[in-house]
Amino acid sequence: MRCGESIIEVLNSDSFSIYSHHNYDQVVVLSDINTAKHCLPRIANLGLGQTANIQTIVIEEGEAFKTLNQAESIWQQLIEYNIGKKALLINVGGGVITDIGGFVASLYKRGIKYWHVPTTLLGQVDAAIGGKNGIDFLDFKNQIGSITFPEKILIWPPFLETLNKRELISGFAEVIKYALISDKSLWDLLQEIRELNEINWFIIIERCASIKSEIVNKDPFEKDVRKALNFGHTIGHAIESYFLKKGHAITHGEAIAYGMECELYLSGLKLNLDSERINKAVTFIRCFFPKIEISSTIRKSLIELMYKDKKNIGNKINFTLIPELGQFQVNHEIDEQYILQCMDLYSRMNYDSIKS
Amino acid sequence: MRCGESIIEVLNSDSFSIYSHHNYDQVVVLSDINTAKHCLPRIANLGLGQTANIQTIVIEEGEAFKTLNQAESIWQQLIEYNIGKKALLINVGGGVITDIGGFVASLYKRGIKYWHVPTTLLGQVDAAIGGKNGIDFLDFKNQIGSITFPEKILIWPPFLETLNKRELISGFAEVIKYALISDKSLWDLLQEIRELNEINWFIIIERCASIKSEIVNKDPFEKDVRKALNFGHTIGHAIESYFLKKGHAITHGEAIAYGMECELYLSGLKLNLDSERINKAVTFIRCFFPKIEISSTIRKSLIELMYKDKKNIGNKINFTLIPELGQFQVNHEIDEQYILQCMDLYSRMNYDSIKS
Repeated sequence: MRCGESIIEVLNSDSFSIYSHHNYDQVVVLSDINTAKHCLPRIANLGLGQTANIQTIVIEEGEAFKTLNQAESIWQQLIEYNIGKKALLINVGGGVITDIGGFVASLYKRGIKYWHVPTTLLGQVDAAIGGKNGIDFLDFKNQIGSITFPEKILIWPPFLETLNKRELISGFAEVIKYALISDKSLWDLLQEIRELNEINWFIIIERCASIKSEIVNKDPFEKDVRKALNFGHTIGHAIESYFLKKGHAITHGEAIAYGMECELYLSGLKLNLDSERINKAVTFIRCFFPKIEISSTIRKSLIELMYKDKKNIGNKINFTLIPELGQFQVNHEIDEQYILQCMDLYSRMNYDSIKS
Repeated sequence: MRCGESIIEVLNSDSFSIYSHHNYDQVVVLSDINTAKHCLPRIANLGLGQTANIQTIVIEEGEAFKTLNQAESIWQQLIEYNIGKKALLINVGGGVITDIGGFVASLYKRGIKYWHVPTTLLGQVDAAIGGKNGIDFLDFKNQIGSITFPEKILIWPPFLETLNKRELISGFAEVIKYALISDKSLWDLLQEIRELNEINWFIIIERCASIKSEIVNKDPFEKDVRKALNFGHTIGHAIESYFLKKGHAITHGEAIAYGMECELYLSGLKLNLDSERINKAVTFIRCFFPKIEISSTIRKSLIELMYKDKKNIGNKINFTLIPELGQFQVNHEIDEQYILQCMDLYSRMNYDSIKS
């Protein structure tokens, strides 16, 4: 399938080789220490160290390294390896690697070609798709970046076997998001799941990649419908940034799960989304994600972070809400009092009350 | 006229106001200390400090500040001013300001709109036109950057009155380049000039902007004909980088004048450009530009720098040459022995011998 200028291939094969079709003179593989250990060995014929024209760059692992300093050090290594304008950079890893790898490639010598090979669920259903790249800056996520499309996105579901459960669940938040904003039948399919190891990932990933591609193709530069993908992310990103700054990071999925729950309540308040449906969705989300305790003082800081969210226009906080499960409405500007009210609702709601 | 996604207006008016037509909520003006002193006061109704929604950022002046650190500090200021995604950045200054301003704007919150208001001749005929932005990195010029187009490029020739002679002549090298690669009638027109203060800049700038736009529109991402604009720049950039690193910078025009002279000799060697025409062109160039003495040891370092030039593919040094005055051929890969030979020719040629 196509997403912007990218060709996406979801591979239903037992083995996986990056190199079967490329004809680049110079290839650089970017990954992090974790991926280099667990995923690179699973790539058939990678031939690292055997073929003169393949170089590898391995960086530290984690969101804390998605910085301008890290980008700078990758550029330095590309120059040391004498990488020219006709080279290919292949980003093998999770969202951090594809975000920073896309950023680095799109700016190196005014842009070289690059591929994404996402190895996490979050990467395979979301982060690697859609051309967004970037780095975090002054504690703001993806503050500096651009939208440029990789030439190819190669998705091989067996990489998910290398993930621990928390990482797998992190990506599952985005799967839930796709269902909530645009696919009632996917939502119904998800309702049957109680354990992630029951899932046929090939089917789920293809479905999610196709939903995201369709939305991105309609609006690649996020002027309108692409904002649908921000459901759960206005509040979610603020929480993620907050914890990142505090040094005890939570996963993207955990933050987005919190955000989706609050934004479901907001959808109830503002668009009269039926409270039974809200409860059902919240119950489902809480089957997979832990509750995050956030004091009322911290909530005020989160509001400050939301004002600085790059998705906002001027001094408003902009939300995507859902009038019905499987539908979305973009560009709702919400007063902070309602946001605080929904965060309060989140805190007061506990597992027992929603499960009963 | 149009260049890529930019609208270019060359203004033949006595006074100049940026703000007559914009309808942006937030406007930031980026300039350097020199431009802020000499050019901003010439903008009518700029209203700096009077209108709440206009902010200014003034940076240090010169190529030495076209760095990632400088970009980082501009991003920091944009965040401090709480600049949102719907803001406009107006870059008022020479090539350094438009290069770094375009870089900063295209990456801030994944891209905000920006305008260029070039105030130097180099900016007005070349640097501000064509969407290239970037910063220098590890002593390589424009190593990190991209091609993104400003919404508008407003060119007001009276800004040239603020330049000293050396700065004015620096831009004139690009005027000569346009004539050499694609406009014999411009070349003939230039032959009548002996003093820069005789020139009707409005006519010259419109002609140059139109030549550049036509070439860029044919090939915005420099896959083919846009390389024509690199005439004089393969050797020229190496010299500019070399002196930048040594700390005693020469002007871009001085470097390009050196480069054009050598590449005229190369055009003679490789494409049989007539030696009488070469001499005529070299004589004309040397009317305006000083001779640069470069020892044979340094020439070897320059060759190394050329190998690292981002325009190259693999391990070749790529040139645009001219088979005839007013014509170009791109993609000539030249062995270093010929390049050294032409640099040697440059050194041995002196003013007296070429003027006689």
